[in-house]
This record gives sequence, C-alpha cells and structure tokens, in this order.
Amino acid sequence: MSSKSEMKLFTLNSNEPLAQEISEILEAPLGKSSVVRFSDGEVQINIEESVRGDDIYLIQSTSQPVNEHLMELLIMIDAMKRASARTINVVLPYYGYARQDRKARPREPITAKLIADLLESAGVSRVITMDMHAPQIQGFFNIPVDQLLGTSILGKYYKEKDMKDIVVVAPATSGLSRARRMANLLDTPIAFVDKRRPEPNADEVMNVVGSIEGKTALIVDDMIDTAETVVQAASALIESGVHDIYACGTHAVLSEPAVQKIEESPIKELVITNTVFLPEEKQIQKIKSLSVAPLFADAIVRVQTDHSVSELFD
Amino acid sequence: MSSKSEMKLFTLNSNEPLAQEISEILEAPLGKSSVVRFSDGEVQINIEESVRGDDIYLIQSTSQPVNEHLMELLIMIDAMKRASARTINVVLPYYGYARQDRKARPREPITAKLIADLLESAGVSRVITMDMHAPQIQGFFNIPVDQLLGTSILGKYYKEKDMKDIVVVAPATSGLSRARRMANLLDTPIAFVDKRRPEPNADEVMNVVGSIEGKTALIVDDMIDTAETVVQAASALIESGVHDIYACGTHAVLSEPAVQKIEESPIKELVITNTVFLPEEKQIQKIKSLSVAPLFADAIVRVQTDHSVSELFD
Amino acid sequence: MSSKSEMKLFTLNSNEPLAQEISEILEAPLGKSSVVRFSDGEVQINIEESVRGDDIYLIQSTSQPVNEHLMELLIMIDAMKRASARTINVVLPYYGYARQDRKARPREPITAKLIADLLESAGVSRVITMDMHAPQIQGFFNIPVDQLLGTSILGKYYKEKDMKDIVVVAPATSGLSRARRMANLLDTPIAFVDKRRPEPNADEVMNVVGSIEGKTALIVDDMIDTAETVVQAASALIESGVHDIYACGTHAVLSEPAVQKIEESPIKELVITNTVFLPEEKQIQKIKSLSVAPLFADAIVRVQTDHSVSELFD
Amino acid sequence: MSSKSEMKLFTLNSNEPLAQEISEILEAPLGKSSVVRFSDGEVQINIEESVRGDDIYLIQSTSQPVNEHLMELLIMIDAMKRASARTINVVLPYYGYARQDRKARPREPITAKLIADLLESAGVSRVITMDMHAPQIQGFFNIPVDQLLGTSILGKYYKEKDMKDIVVVAPATSGLSRARRMANLLDTPIAFVDKRRPEPNADEVMNVVGSIEGKTALIVDDMIDTAETVVQAASALIESGVHDIYACGTHAVLSEPAVQKIEESPIKELVITNTVFLPEEKQIQKIKSLSVAPLFADAIVRVQTDHSVSELFD
Amino acid sequence: MSSKSEMKLFTLNSNEPLAQEISEILEAPLGKSSVVRFSDGEVQINIEESVRGDDIYLIQSTSQPVNEHLMELLIMIDAMKRASARTINVVLPYYGYARQDRKARPREPITAKLIADLLESAGVSRVITMDMHAPQIQGFFNIPVDQLLGTSILGKYYKEKDMKDIVVVAPATSGLSRARRMANLLDTPIAFVDKRRPEPNADEVMNVVGSIEGKTALIVDDMIDTAETVVQAASALIESGVHDIYACGTHAVLSEPAVQKIEESPIKELVITNTVFLPEEKQIQKIKSLSVAPLFADAIVRVQTDHSVSELFD
Amino acid sequence: MSSKSEMKLFTLNSNEPLAQEISEILEAPLGKSSVVRFSDGEVQINIEESVRGDDIYLIQSTSQPVNEHLMELLIMIDAMKRASARTINVVLPYYGYARQDRKARPREPITAKLIADLLESAGVSRVITMDMHAPQIQGFFNIPVDQLLGTSILGKYYKEKDMKDIVVVAPATSGLSRARRMANLLDTPIAFVDKRRPEPNADEVMNVVGSIEGKTALIVDDMIDTAETVVQAASALIESGVHDIYACGTHAVLSEPAVQKIEESPIKELVITNTVFLPEEKQIQKIKSLSVAPLFADAIVRVQTDHSVSELFD
Repeated sequence: MSSKSEMKLFTLNSNEPLAQEISEILEAPLGKSSVVRFSDGEVQINIEESVRGDDIYLIQSTSQPVNEHLMELLIMIDAMKRASARTINVVLPYYGYARQDRKARPREPITAKLIADLLESAGVSRVITMDMHAPQIQGFFNIPVDQLLGTSILGKYYKEKDMKDIVVVAPATSGLSRARRMANLLDTPIAFVDKRRPEPNADEVMNVVGSIEGKTALIVDDMIDTAETVVQAASALIESGVHDIYACGTHAVLSEPAVQKIEESPIKELVITNTVFLPEEKQIQKIKSLSVAPLFADAIVRVQTDHSVSELFD
Repeated sequence: MSSKSEMKLFTLNSNEPLAQEISEILEAPLGKSSVVRFSDGEVQINIEESVRGDDIYLIQSTSQPVNEHLMELLIMIDAMKRASARTINVVLPYYGYARQDRKARPREPITAKLIADLLESAGVSRVITMDMHAPQIQGFFNIPVDQLLGTSILGKYYKEKDMKDIVVVAPATSGLSRARRMANLLDTPIAFVDKRRPEPNADEVMNVVGSIEGKTALIVDDMIDTAETVVQAASALIESGVHDIYACGTHAVLSEPAVQKIEESPIKELVITNTVFLPEEKQIQKIKSLSVAPLFADAIVRVQTDHSVSELFD
Repeated sequence: MSSKSEMKLFTLNSNEPLAQEISEILEAPLGKSSVVRFSDGEVQINIEESVRGDDIYLIQSTSQPVNEHLMELLIMIDAMKRASARTINVVLPYYGYARQDRKARPREPITAKLIADLLESAGVSRVITMDMHAPQIQGFFNIPVDQLLGTSILGKYYKEKDMKDIVVVAPATSGLSRARRMANLLDTPIAFVDKRRPEPNADEVMNVVGSIEGKTALIVDDMIDTAETVVQAASALIESGVHDIYACGTHAVLSEPAVQKIEESPIKELVITNTVFLPEEKQIQKIKSLSVAPLFADAIVRVQTDHSVSELFD
Repeated sequence: MSSKSEMKLFTLNSNEPLAQEISEILEAPLGKSSVVRFSDGEVQINIEESVRGDDIYLIQSTSQPVNEHLMELLIMIDAMKRASARTINVVLPYYGYARQDRKARPREPITAKLIADLLESAGVSRVITMDMHAPQIQGFFNIPVDQLLGTSILGKYYKEKDMKDIVVVAPATSGLSRARRMANLLDTPIAFVDKRRPEPNADEVMNVVGSIEGKTALIVDDMIDTAETVVQAASALIESGVHDIYACGTHAVLSEPAVQKIEESPIKELVITNTVFLPEEKQIQKIKSLSVAPLFADAIVRVQTDHSVSELFD
Repeated sequence: MSSKSEMKLFTLNSNEPLAQEISEILEAPLGKSSVVRFSDGEVQINIEESVRGDDIYLIQSTSQPVNEHLMELLIMIDAMKRASARTINVVLPYYGYARQDRKARPREPITAKLIADLLESAGVSRVITMDMHAPQIQGFFNIPVDQLLGTSILGKYYKEKDMKDIVVVAPATSGLSRARRMANLLDTPIAFVDKRRPEPNADEVMNVVGSIEGKTALIVDDMIDTAETVVQAASALIESGVHDIYACGTHAVLSEPAVQKIEESPIKELVITNTVFLPEEKQIQKIKSLSVAPLFADAIVRVQTDHSVSELFD
Repeated sequence: MSSKSEMKLFTLNSNEPLAQEISEILEAPLGKSSVVRFSDGEVQINIEESVRGDDIYLIQSTSQPVNEHLMELLIMIDAMKRASARTINVVLPYYGYARQDRKARPREPITAKLIADLLESAGVSRVITMDMHAPQIQGFFNIPVDQLLGTSILGKYYKEKDMKDIVVVAPATSGLSRARRMANLLDTPIAFVDKRRPEPNADEVMNVVGSIEGKTALIVDDMIDTAETVVQAASALIESGVHDIYACGTHAVLSEPAVQKIEESPIKELVITNTVFLPEEKQIQKIKSLSVAPLFADAIVRVQTDHSVSELFD
C-alpha cells in the first residue's frame, strides 16, 4: 500500500474562462466543485470528488468583488485541508489588496500582509501569482511564492509590434523600476510623469520629466484600476509634445468609469492581460487582451514536476 | 512615566444604530474612524484618533453582506494591532457562518472554525458575542469568549407578557436543548416538529411530537433566516390543533422572502432582537424587536473592570 | 536513493484486542513497542523497531483510566515524531473528555478542545475516530479528522433483526438529532424523554414526549456511561405504556454500577460496540457487543491509499 | 474605568498541605475551586470565584499519580485562560517526568520537553519550580521559569547541624555537579560512587571514587524515588570504611519500597523537603522533612511585585 | 501588591554614543549590562540589574559587523524575555539586511523578512526604527513597528540652509519616491539618474532624466554604503551641466572606500545622520552628521506614555 | 506527472574540506552555491541550481566566527525554503553556543535554545549533529535530531591503540558521564579532577579524586576550546603521580592560545576530530585528527533511505 500523488485543477468564481483555458492547455479537467451562496449571502463550498493525497492547484483571482472572492478562496482552502489534500497550491493571477502593502499614514492596516497571513492560516502550501504590486509582498509569506512576470507577455507583444522611437513612461514616481525593466526589454530610454505643486497653495500640475517630444510614449503600469493615473499621464504627455501614446498594464481592474475614460483619452491602444476577467461590456476595440494561460499552465507543470519556474524568464 | 489604559468603543458598518445605543448607555463616544470602499471594492480603514495603549471594543455583526462585514472587521483588527492598541475586544452580536460548524458531508469546510482562526490570526484579544449557533463554537477559540444569552431578554419579555397554557416548541430536532432552556424559564412543557418520510419514496411530512392540542405554541429558534423552518413548523402546529402561535429568535437574518412569509403565516407575533440591523422595509407590525444594547453595554463594563460576565445571568 | 513510505500499525494499552483484530484484518502486524510504568507511575515508551519515514497508525482509545491513556498517547506521539515517522495517524475509536465540549457554566474549561490542542502540539498528523459526542469537535482540530459512524454498524444490526413497530427514542433532549438519524435508517417515528419540574420546587419528573404506547422503544445514545440516563428513560417509557425496550450506544464506558443497573432494568438488550474495551466481568448476556474493527481497518486502508473515507457510508 | 490586578492563589490535589502553608505565610486565602472526578475517571474543574484580570498562582506538584496531577493542571490552566485570568503562574514544586529529558536510546520520547510544550500550549504564563533534574529543562520553555534551589534549605540545615569531617558524595556519576554545589556550601571535599564491570561478563560492582575512609559521608541527590541508588551507594560507602552516612534529596518521591529500604539501610538520617506530599505511612523517624513553603511564598511575592527572585540565593 | 511598570534603556555595542545621547535627553540612565566575547567568539550577555516587569528599550543598530550586532541583539532579547521583562522594545536606528527585501533572482533568500522572523521568534514586543529601505518591511512584522523619517531631520537642515534653485535628484530609478518626498518639503522639481545601454553590447551609460542644467542638485538616498551610486550620479550630473552638487542619506554605512570616493567627488557636502556610528577615521570635513537622538528620545517617550508617534511628523 | 525526490548536498563556508570528504564518500557532488559578503559585511547567498522538491543536506559547523557561520546557515535555509526544497536537513557537526544551555546565573539567556528556535523559525526540517554539549539540547527542538557519537570514533582509536593500565579522567565534575561512557568502551576505571578551596579565602586547588598513581590517564572532554581545562587537569594528574597522560575531545575549537598550551603541556597526544576545521597553523604533531566524514556520510544515507541511524552505534 503506497501513496499516489496526483495533480488536480480546481477553479472558483472569479475567472472561470482563464481556468478553463489553463485546463485545456494542460489537458487536465477542472475538478468538480461548486460555490453556492445561501440566501443570507454565506458562501457554501461543495467539492464533489475526492482530493485525498492530491496536489491541488486552485485558480482564483481576488478581483472585484474582492472580499467575496477572497472568502471563497479561504473557505475552499479550509475544505481542501480537511479533505486531506496533499498540497494546496493557490494560483492567484491577480492579488487583490496588494496596494495596501505599507503604512502610508498613521494607524493604517497593512492589508496585503493580512491577506498573506489569512491564506497561511487557512492552510495554503504555495502561491503562484503574477506581478505583485511590490516585490516585497513575496516576503509577506513564509511559504514558497512563484511570481510570474507580465512583462514576459507584454514585452514580447511590443517587440513583435516593432514600434519606432519609443520612450517608456512611468505614469507616477512609484512605477519607475517597472518602466526601466520594460525599457531594458525594448532598448529604449525612459521618462516619468511627476505631480508637483509649483508654489504653495497652487494647484498640482503634471509634469513630464525626460525627453519625450516627437517620440512615441509607451506608458507602463502594473494595474489599470480607475485609469485616472494613466489617462492623466497621457494628457501630460500630449502637452509635452509627444507623437503617439500607447499604454499597457498587467491587471485590468478597470473600475468604473475606466473604460469610458480610456475610450475618450488620446491613448491609441491599451494592452492588458486576462489575470482579471474582463466582462463583455468592458471589451472595447481600444483594449487588447493577451492571455496569461500558457504561462500559468507552464508554471503549474514546472511546480508539479519540480522544475525551475524562473527558467520561464530566461 | 507610566501606562494609562483607556476603554474606547469603535463601530464598523454592519450595525451602527446598535453601536450608537451602546455608546449612549456607556456615555462613551464612538471612536472616530471610517470605512471607505475604493472603486474596485477594496476596503480602506481610517482610524482617526490615537489608540495606543487603549482597550478597544470593536462592535460589528458579521451579518449580510457577511464577507464584506467580516473583511472590514479583520482589516480593522490589523490596523488596531499595528497602531499599538493594548487589547482588541471584538463585540460580535451576530456571528456569521456559525451554522457551518461541522462536516455534515464529505469534503465540507468548517467555516465557523475558519472564521475563529482568521480572527485570532488577525490579532483579536477577546470576543463578546450572543447565542452562538452551537455552544461548541466557543471552543473554536483559544482566547476568552463571553457569550451572552438571548433568552435573558426574550424570556423576560414572555414572562412579563404572561401568556397562558404555553408549550415551547422546537421547530426542528436540532433546537430541542434551546427550547428546553426557554421552557425552564417559563415553566412549560415542550414539543418539537419532526420531519419524516412515512414510507420510502413518499414525500416528507411534518409531524408535531408532543401534546399541543388546544394550547398556545411558542416556537423558539436562535436565528430566523428565510423563516422557512419557523413557518413550516407553524403549519404543522395548526394541523395539530394548536390554539395560538407565537415565535421568537435572537438573530433576525430575515433573508428574502422571510418577512413576507411571516406576514402571511399564522404566527401572531415574532419577537427578535437587534443583534442584526433590521432595515426599515423589514419592520412590519408582526415583528417586534427587543434591544440587546443594555446587555452588551453591561458586559463591556464588566470586561473592562474585570467583573464576572456570567453574573449577568444569575 | 529515494524515500519509501510504509504503513505501520501500533497499539497502546487501552484496547489491545481491537488493535489485534484490526491487525489481523489488514494482515499487518502490530509494531513492536512497549509501555512501561516506573515505580513512581511515570510512563516510559519503548519503540522497538525503526519507524523512519513510515506512516504510523497508532490505535488507542482514551477510555478509563482516561488520563493515563491520554498521556501514553501523547508520549508515544512525541517519540514517533522524534523518531522521524513520516505521518502519525491517531486511531481514536473513543475520544475521552468529549462531553466537556463547551462552557456550560462560568469558568469551565473546554477540555475536549484542550485535548485537541495537546494532540496537535505533540505532533499528530491526522485523527480517525468514531461518533464524537458533538460533530463540532472536528472543528477543534486543524488537521484532517475522519469520523466513522456507529450507526453504520448499529443500524445494520437492527435492520437485520427486523423488529416491528419501533419508535426510536432519544433519552434526553440533547440526543434528538442522533435519534433522527437512526430513525431514518429504520424508517420509524421518534420520541424523546423530557425532564421537567411540573411546578417550582416540585421534584423533576421524566416525561415521554411522542406517541409510544404499545410500541417497541429503541433508545439510542452515543455513550453509555453510568447508564443512569438510559435506565431512567426506560422507566419513563414503561410508565408510558411501551411494549418492549431495546437500547444501543456506540461507546460502552459502563462505569460502576452501570452493568448492574442495566441487568436490573426493563431493557431487553443493550447493543454496544468495542470502541472501548469491555472487561470480562462486564460481559453479561443482556449486553451484545459488535465489532468496529472491520470499519476501522477499511478506513485505515482508504487513508493510506488516498481513497475517500466517506464512501464507507454510501 | 481601569484595570485592577490582583494576586490569587489556587491549589489542586497533589500537595494541599504545602499550598495551605504558603497561603498562611502570604495571608492570602486559597481561591475556591474543586476538582471532581466523574465515575469514568474524567476530571472536572470548578472555579468558584471570578478570576478576571487576576494574576493566578496555581500550586501543583506533578507527583504520583503523575498523569492525573498533570491533567488536572492542564485542564485548570485551560479554565483559567477562558475565564480571562491576566496571568497564569504555575507553581510546580516538583516537576514530574523530569528524568526523561533526553534521548538516551533510539526512538525515545523527550517527555520532559513534551510536558513543557503541553503547559505552554494550554496557556501558562510562567513557571516557578525547584531543582529541576537537569538545569537545561529551563530551556525547554519559552516563558520565564524561576527555579528555586533545594540546597538553600538543605545546606542551611547541615550548616547548622555542624557535623565534622564530612565528604559530600554523589551516588552516581550524573550527580557530581550537584554534590560539588553542596560541598562548596559546607566547605568539604567530594567523592562519588561508580558502577563498573571489573571484567567483561562479570557482575557490576559499586566503587567509591575518592577518599572516604573514616569520614562522615553525606550523600546528596535531587530526587529519592525507589531509594535504590542512595541505598546502594550507602552499601558501597560502608565497604569503603566510612564512619557515618547521612543522605538528603529535594524531592521525596519515595515509591515502594523506598521507605522500608531506607529504614533498613545504614543511612542515619535522610533529609528531604515537602515539594512532594509525604503521606503519614511514609513518615518514619529516620526521614526528616524540611518545608519549602517560606521559600515559595517569598518567590511568589517577588514575582508579583517584580522583584528579583535570584536575590533569594544571595 | 500591584505591578509597577518602569521604563529602562539598555544599549548594546553598535552605537553607544547615540544610546548615551538618548539617555541624557531622557534623563534615564542606561541599564547595567555587558557583552563579553569568549575566546572562541561566542557572545555572552550579562544583565546586571533586575528587569522584572519593566518596559525595556534596547538600542542597537544592526550595522557592520552586522551578524555580530544582530546576534548580540537576539541573545539580549532572549535574556530579557527569560528575565521577565514586561515588554521588549527594540530601538533599531539602522535595520541591516534591509536591501534583501525581495527575490530579485531565483532561489534568493528574503533576508530582511528572515531578520523580522528571528526578532519575533526571540520575543521582541515592538520595533522603533528609521527609514526602512522599503516601507513594505513594516509588513514583515506582526508586531507594532514605529518608523521615524530621516527627512524630518535632513529636510529641516536644507530648509534652514535655504539653497537656491535646487533640483532633488534620485541617484537611481528605485529612489524616486523618496526624492519626491524631499522635493515636496523643499518645493522643488525632481530628476533622476538612469542607467542604460544605448545599444546591445554597448557599455552602460548614466543619463540624467529631467532638467538640471545650471541648477543645484541635491542627491537624496536612504543609505550611503560604498558611495558608488551617489558618486556615479554626481559624475552624470556634472556632465549634464549642473551648477553645484549636494547629497544626503540617512544611514551612513560608508564601507570602504566610500569616504575616499566622496572626498574626491564633486559633491560639496554629504549630510548624514548618526543612526550608524561613524568612527573618527571616517569623519571628514565634507561629511556632516546630524543627530537622530532627540527624535528617538521623543519617540520612546511617546511609546511609553501611549501618545501618537505619527504626530512627530505633523 | 509525479514528484521526484532527490538528495542534494550543499556546503557553506565553515568546513568545506569535511563537506568535500562527505561528498566524495557519497559520490554525490556538492550543489553549486556561493556565499558572498557585501562590502558592509552582509551575507549574500546564491544557489546556482534548482532545488525544487529536493531533499537538501546542508553541511555547516557553527564554529568560529560563530555568528557569521550561523547567519550564513539561517539565510541559506530561508533561501532553500523559498526555493521549494522538499526537506532541509542541516548537518551540523559542531553546534556552537551549546555551552549556554541553562541559566547558570540570574538574567542569563539560554542561547543554545535560542539557536534551536532560530533554526526552526527559518524552516529547517531535521538536524544531524554530533556530541551536543548536553544531551538535553535535543529536547530544545521539536523536529527530529540525529546525534552521532564521537566516542564511536575516538573509542575505536584507543581500542586499537591498546594502551595498558588506563584510567579515564573527567577534567571537571561536569564531564563524568562522558568519561564513564568512554571507560565502558575501554573497560577501565574512572577518576575526575575537582576544584576546591581548602579553606575560606584560600586559593582554589585542583585535586584528583580517584586512584591514578602509576597509571596512564586518558582525559576525555567533548570540546577543547582554550585547552585550559584539559591542561590544568594534566598538571593535577602529574602531581598525583600519574605515569602518562593522553587526552581527547570531539570538537577542536582550539581558541588562542590553546595550541601553544597543549604543545607545552605534559599531554603526550591530543586526539580530536574534524567537526571543526583545523587550519594548518594549528596542526602540530601532538594533535591527531580523526575524520568524522564516513560517519556523517553513513548517517546521511540512512536518513535519506529511512534506515535507523542508531544502528550506527550497535
């Protein structure tokens, strides 16, 4: 009598199309389970097949509604643990609350750390994610965390597109390291958009720092939420005499009224990925979505067969 | 230089009127804080006054929408912990997910335990709650839990009402111990409603076990959710020749279409408490609400001054 | 060089005949070990064969003397952990202290939770048990707990016995859910025995709630300790005009003077299982013991080979 | 409203006379509580007064029956924790299982560490004890441990007795450091009793190493259990031409037939302390008991008032 | 008998002059303790006065030799915990290993998180520190962390100096947020130094992004280690036609040959603080050191008296 | 897709020759990794091959400089954990800080326990070590610890050497148990060296207790640090008329000026092992080093293939 150890994929509610795509690439069916909501809103999880001794890969983005998706995930982990899964690997294409990763003001929570603690407390064995808001979030965990890079998808897209005379632009001071990484891939200079009050009590003005005139700007961000940052950056770029504006971001949160704002902005094309599910009403022509499914599928195989995940980026 | 230790009340979003009432009884203002939701649904907590070295009493029912209210609570606890509160006492008039307290079927989570673990992991020092669905839930915690009893409010009401010829009725087999406690208070016999399939493949029938004919039935439950259980019990009681039907329950979850069902049922009056906030549209004449604020206020004072909470029930 | 993983059975002192029976069914010998008591009463454990990398199944009921048997178990787990066992699965046919599962009065311990914490602290990987006093005790653990059901053995016995006109009777308000489960198996109605003081200061009287006259009563309990509850219930049933009385319970604690009381009671037959070892002097004709060994043997195989344990009950 | 913080003494069953003595010295009554055993042997604890916010000092030796006394202690700690005691200080005059403090053979447990883990897991804040078998046991804990020294009582006794020409003797190789400490107090040389097989397959012989002829031997041990060690040492000393033999030990475990052996031995007087309760039938003239109550009372006051405990030994 | 609670300052070896200065401001003597090194390099701590029930403030920068200073700190915390200190507050003006805060390459440790875990494991209650390399490091802890800001000292210095026509310059892409904060204080624009390979296989070139010609550059960094970054940035600024160059950094690590490099660089003045002890041989005229002692002293008082630390920055 | 599980050896900086020797015996190459020190002294670890799913054996003695070697080890463990190693087995031939294993004086740390906690906190799965200073240190861990015995190497050497008329001598009271073990192997009597003040205020004198005149003394210690203990013991033995003096110790710490002292002492030969790396300048003719590599290699194979390690000593 000896132990088997099988890989099983499961999905929850936040991004079923992505899970489906990963499942097809891996030729591994999604495990049977359901998430029911009682009339009072409580989540009930039903796992409809044995998971004893299995290595579970549980696919869920903690995207909007973030609290619902997070609780689904925690409850599912609890169920898997009590059902004797061998390992519970959470595939978290989008990590919600990642922006609350430090105390910016007194008496603030560090919610990104709280989420890490809740996941570990529930019983997760490993996390596979993409483009955490700050790389330090890996250190919030004491379990292995594999972080995939959105630039390996977005960068490839722009390399093939082969645009001329590009400057990669960080839309705010905080995104400069990310911009530098993309610029390294595309061999371009960088610039950033600075917010500054020219004199006390005056209004804040946006300011492009770096030479951009007559060039094509590629704004790079990790997350497009209300799109305010990226659209304001685009305005500043226009005033600085830029030629064309493109933009990209890994996580398409796209809260209201992001889509409309982008539609009306001077941005020619916004490239995103499907880490967050994009409902049909948000799919406009200007927004192009690239799939992360092949990358995650590859990562899952590598984890399950003990091969290096970092080689994915060589 | 020595340490002070002050009591501070805070509330979150689930039941502000109750928190307000407790605050007035204690003549202690509610601490300044706010809960904001970003456009993508993430919760942001702002605590607007120092809590260093203070004993915090944080009032929140994890009622509908339960996941939102729970995450508010966990994030607030994280913020309080990092802001150096001396103790964080969670006042949880209603404990959501309490019904998922055991594995009734294979591969089920035990969500009530998960919630306890999440609260302890976030950093709570103590819980003050009322009528947990099962008394064993106290054992899910390794911190002190003070449980107040709804019967001390509901029982007093019926004692004063002084109805004649009552039989206390448990609406299902699981509620018999609770019914017995109320019957002890009111000095009455008990009965219960049994569901049974008279022969294989036949429909389930409701059956009153116990002598009820010509008597006044008082159905006692801990939680009125969809009201299906209590309304079905009422129908079975009617068929058993009962004279009048009253009902009570501590936690008025009242999910749709509970209110309408109760309105149309033979139940003369449903008495509940305000552990769960009852919005105006659910306030019908047949439903009478009693306040738990004096009881919770008393418990908070006793905890803060190290007096026995159990004496509240002598 | 790679890791093997072998299953090994071990027993301690509380119920060797059951362990022997399980060992024979599984054709797996009991591991060599001994429990010695020093002259001052301290327990000394000797494990006399290597357990490195093995999956250990350790059979012990925490039956009387409960503290001795519990300490044997904890010390053995510590020894197994330090001896590099791969997993330590505790087979706990009877879980002592299970009745202390909530704070019934102020300042009470929750000993059933303490036991769970002690077991986890010592290093146990999983628990396999039967008929916990309350199903919520599973939630006291954060490791997988497989609970077998005594009704799958007792119910089968009564189905085959094919008695007529049965009513399943809960001997107290707290056992009604258990009675309902047995009644479902046997397709019978239920009743229960209620204790009540007819008026203040009067003596408590036992009262059968439900129609029982002329029927055959089958009293169902989880544990027969002093037998007071079941024997009192039998008296109340006699007064209610019952025809015949049978009784059953999973765990035969049978503290003094339970056996004599049962002998003298109107109960025709008491059916129990061998989760607790029954010494010869307690084996009277009226008490029939069914073996749980085949069920536990089956569960151990399923755990070791990662098959669903719940299918045992389909 | 502010927090009080009161000291309360409680005792359990193992050594009530010592607890009573400490209580009298401190003029602090023993808290009302009781330990009941159900007919099946389970321990039930009742704490009959509020302990909210109090600093508890819980007096219990884990002496014979060690498993019973240990479980009483763990359950009491659980009750105190859930009853909101501020701190739970365990006064453990005798620490049972202390001899199982290392893996002497393969697959042995380290029970002394397990006990430490169980105590911490139950919720203890601090331990006050005396003469642990090995000083390293303090390191088994991550909470403060105050260790009192039996030599401060025994040494004082012998200093006042003022015997002449003493050699302090360790009855086995393992006790030499302890003997050296006593010898330092009394300004004497030391010797020890060695067990050795003079040639292969020959019987083991006891051998006194050190000059002892014509002197008065004072055998010093930490614990007198079966008294075999000390009595054998006495025989070896006699053969070595010793003049007189005295013996002392802190913990008077005195398992059968220790008392008889001592009575019949050449030891003139055995001095012990009352860390372990000595029942009347063991009180013979040759055995003199000194009380540790004043020392423990002093230590409790020092802990409660934040004064140095180590000054007790200056 | 009640508990006192006294504040006590202790220092270890890394920065005694700073500790002394804090002690003088607070008029609180440094506790008596010593750190001895055995001949084999092991650290031995001696605390020479009682710390029972005291609130300890332990001042130590984990500066070079970082492993020695860290181990001193961990061992001291262990000693304080076992000596019954009430709280152990670590004052860590400089947090070593802070730069290893993320996995930049495969199979890297996250040493900054490891340090946090080691501190919590040893038993620290709170950390008071300054300018952590990344603000997310606060989230590595689950205890309160108070972070003071170097800009409140450095910014004040430059405000008073009142230089004209300043541009704050980040010496690398990663420091832009810090530069923006200083620029906000001084009401200036910002720029940064970018490293880029103009074409594949070409050498990396430094590039100033932002308008700097004819202005006065103020390079702002958190830590000056080898000074390579800041000196290279200075060269790039010179090439960009800057008028004057100033530089500042909170933590003066100044590893060899930093001092010489700065001496030879076009930087007019480097302003640092004394979070790291600056030995005499590194004190050159070009380097001006500001004291953080008043800020830390103020923070200690606020923590001990439960006042807001964040108000220090209003 | 299934999990492989491979053994990989890694070494750090403290004892590369030993690691190399073990690697050669096992015909298993040392994994590629490097330890770099930044100019400010911080340790940077680079693991240059995948360790996912592997069983890691990490060889490092925490010998001088102990804090450096310990931090290397902790950081490497963190890296291995985050790199998804299956198990992390620390091979610790010499356990630094082992002598600080108890509170000998007030307010002392128990550093040996702190080290155990730090190792467990970093994420170690198992420890393989040799001759811990006190056997109780095994109990400081809650993970499996395999302790090899130096006597199995040293004893074999002396058996083969076949010296006549030996007395095994413990150089201090604390080492008597170790001396007895060696004496059992060689079938000899024992003696020890006692330090005593003959009268108050007189100088301490060394005293040999036991018959040694005309015999060959073999001094046995676990660790030779400054060699003061062993050299003083030799002097005392000379004065007692001993014929010849030999000495041995497992761990050759040999801090300055140990080597010179031994050279000048009457000790004929000091036999040690290579658990601690002996630099060339300390290799004098009088010191003979035996290799522990075969023993550790054997232990690693046994652990990896789940065979008993204790059989190594049968």
